[in-house]
Amino acid sequence: MEKEKNAEISYKRNEEQKKDWKKIHEERKAQKRKWKEEKLLKKMEKEAKRQKEQEDLNLENASEKKGGRLHTLSIALPGSILDNAQSPELRTYLAGQIARAAVIFNIDEIIIFDEVFSKESSVEGQFQGIGKKGQANIQMARILQYLECPQYLRKSFFPHHKDLQYAGILNPLDSPHHMRAEDELPYREGVVLNKPVKAGRGSLVNCGLGKQDVQIDKLLQPGVRVTVRINQYDPSRRILKGRVVSPSAPREDMGLYWGYSVRLAKSLGTVFTESPYEEGYDFTIGTSEKGDSVDTVKIDKTDFRHALIVFGGVQGLEASLESDEALGMDDPSLLFQYYVNTCPHQGSRTIRTEEAILISLASLRTQLQGKWTPQ
Amino acid sequence: MEKEKNAEISYKRNEEQKKDWKKIHEERKAQKRKWKEEKLLKKMEKEAKRQKEQEDLNLENASEKKGGRLHTLSIALPGSILDNAQSPELRTYLAGQIARAAVIFNIDEIIIFDEVFSKESSVEGQFQGIGKKGQANIQMARILQYLECPQYLRKSFFPHHKDLQYAGILNPLDSPHHMRAEDELPYREGVVLNKPVKAGRGSLVNCGLGKQDVQIDKLLQPGVRVTVRINQYDPSRRILKGRVVSPSAPREDMGLYWGYSVRLAKSLGTVFTESPYEEGYDFTIGTSEKGDSVDTVKIDKTDFRHALIVFGGVQGLEASLESDEALGMDDPSLLFQYYVNTCPHQGSRTIRTEEAILISLASLRTQLQGKWTPQ
Repeated sequence: MEKEKNAEISYKRNEEQKKDWKKIHEERKAQKRKWKEEKLLKKMEKEAKRQKEQEDLNLENASEKKGGRLHTLSIALPGSILDNAQSPELRTYLAGQIARAAVIFNIDEIIIFDEVFSKESSVEGQFQGIGKKGQANIQMARILQYLECPQYLRKSFFPHHKDLQYAGILNPLDSPHHMRAEDELPYREGVVLNKPVKAGRGSLVNCGLGKQDVQIDKLLQPGVRVTVRINQYDPSRRILKGRVVSPSAPREDMGLYWGYSVRLAKSLGTVFTESPYEEGYDFTIGTSEKGDSVDTVKIDKTDFRHALIVFGGVQGLEASLESDEALGMDDPSLLFQYYVNTCPHQGSRTIRTEEAILISLASLRTQLQGKWTPQ
Repeated sequence: MEKEKNAEISYKRNEEQKKDWKKIHEERKAQKRKWKEEKLLKKMEKEAKRQKEQEDLNLENASEKKGGRLHTLSIALPGSILDNAQSPELRTYLAGQIARAAVIFNIDEIIIFDEVFSKESSVEGQFQGIGKKGQANIQMARILQYLECPQYLRKSFFPHHKDLQYAGILNPLDSPHHMRAEDELPYREGVVLNKPVKAGRGSLVNCGLGKQDVQIDKLLQPGVRVTVRINQYDPSRRILKGRVVSPSAPREDMGLYWGYSVRLAKSLGTVFTESPYEEGYDFTIGTSEKGDSVDTVKIDKTDFRHALIVFGGVQGLEASLESDEALGMDDPSLLFQYYVNTCPHQGSRTIRTEEAILISLASLRTQLQGKWTPQ
């Protein structure tokens, strides 16, 4: 009896076990299905999100609706204006004034061109020292780049240099991409860090978030400056996720001003011919006291992509033109679509270039807005 | 026969002599008449000339036709912006930037007002030294006055002062009334000299004409600054003739920009109430990032006499207003006829006052021209 009982129990157990196993098996299967479904769902969600972001960034028409700015603004001026400053401090301060003027008016590119007056000069007159001529252009470019760089990245990109000796007196640009650690814009400028990452993961980037690093979607060379779109801010996390975007994305996507690039041009002519934009500049303005009064000339170009406003130096734009032999023309009105005097009836015989930039960009501001409708 | 002949001759001679005397007498009479006529003619010409000059100067309608400017432009800003400069040199340079901005846009009066933040301040915090607050205003005013004064008169009006210690780095204003010896405008600024003159004659004035003095139509206290209308330039003469006119004559008569006056105001309120113009200001504009966009607000006042444009300091115009308890209002739009943002969509979070002046005056330039039609 006991044996039978035992056998019965054993059978029952077996049966129960069988049942249990079946149940477990089914449950596991269900679980697996659920996981698979969840995984798929996540994948789909991720894909949808990525697609949306792609749309946000790529579809120009969509951007336009949301306040994105699709055109660019460039200004060009001769670096030689620095040679007119009366001390190394004021030389530095003057370059800073140019940077601030550019930032106030959302300028995307500053071109420093060389005014080569020296070709026909004799050996008479004041000796300026070898290579003195070009130094103003390079120093101007260096200070402009230094100021444009967010404070938290300067250590990485600007080692000590005598051109930056008086950088301490420069007024900050206070532009949107110069962010404090607690600011939460979707974009941030960063530098790729030399920190080890797991296989398959992207590089870590210092985006000025204190101890928080941002892991981007790509492996990049350490030391490279990148524009990062942050997925989500979260102060509790050690590492945020983000992906590398074009430096023009903040402007094209949201109409955010995102600093300027700096270009050195060997002459006034190469300001035009060496444009970083494939199509070149399609809206060009020269500024001069000898130009047509801005009150009478009708500037009604709105469909431009790349505007360029050119300023002269101490001797005016006419002198810059004369010194560029390759251009082979003396009449500046032939070089520009518009050649304007942006400050008619001026009370001073002279307007300094740093003043002319603020005055001209203020005078032309609505025209330079083109089709952009800021948010 | 001979006697008879002689008598005949004698008679003839007498007759001839009689005839001659008659003739001479008549000729003399004619000459006298001619002289009288000429004298009268000269007198009439002189009178006509004087009348014409009087008309030129006094008749406002006549002036308007010839390019004279009858309205005035004033700007007001807090002197405290100097305290934001990073060195004594840059403090000086900043005041110079204000002066140049004013001159470029034909500003006739600069008012430096005191931003009194100190009334409710506690004894805690940084000690700034007694009287430090007011110094920025006075130093700003002094540098502005120094720069406005033609170079050849500075020795007479600006003895050495520590506020002007770094005046050497200031950029010149290059305005029409800063004339070189060889310039020949109808007007000149001068200082009355302490030189003896004959009884009934006017004082001698140094008008920056090298060794040439100008004798004016009045006897004035030596050391006084005067605006002189030169009768005629003549390099061969030791002394030119001229007459004292109002400092506003060059502007009202010919539309010439003739420098600015400087006024210190104890508060934002007294900028308005202590106007040097009897009628006060009849066109007032406040500038602020918080104002209405200059693109949307319609400023169409053209018949004004005295315009006033007010700029805020480091904390903006709102802070200046709050600190003026006597005004008893917080809303700046109540204080001004127009309260405008002259730089919408700015790419920098901040616009410095020296930048705002150039930007705002460029933005408002056509409106501030009023009914003036410059030559």
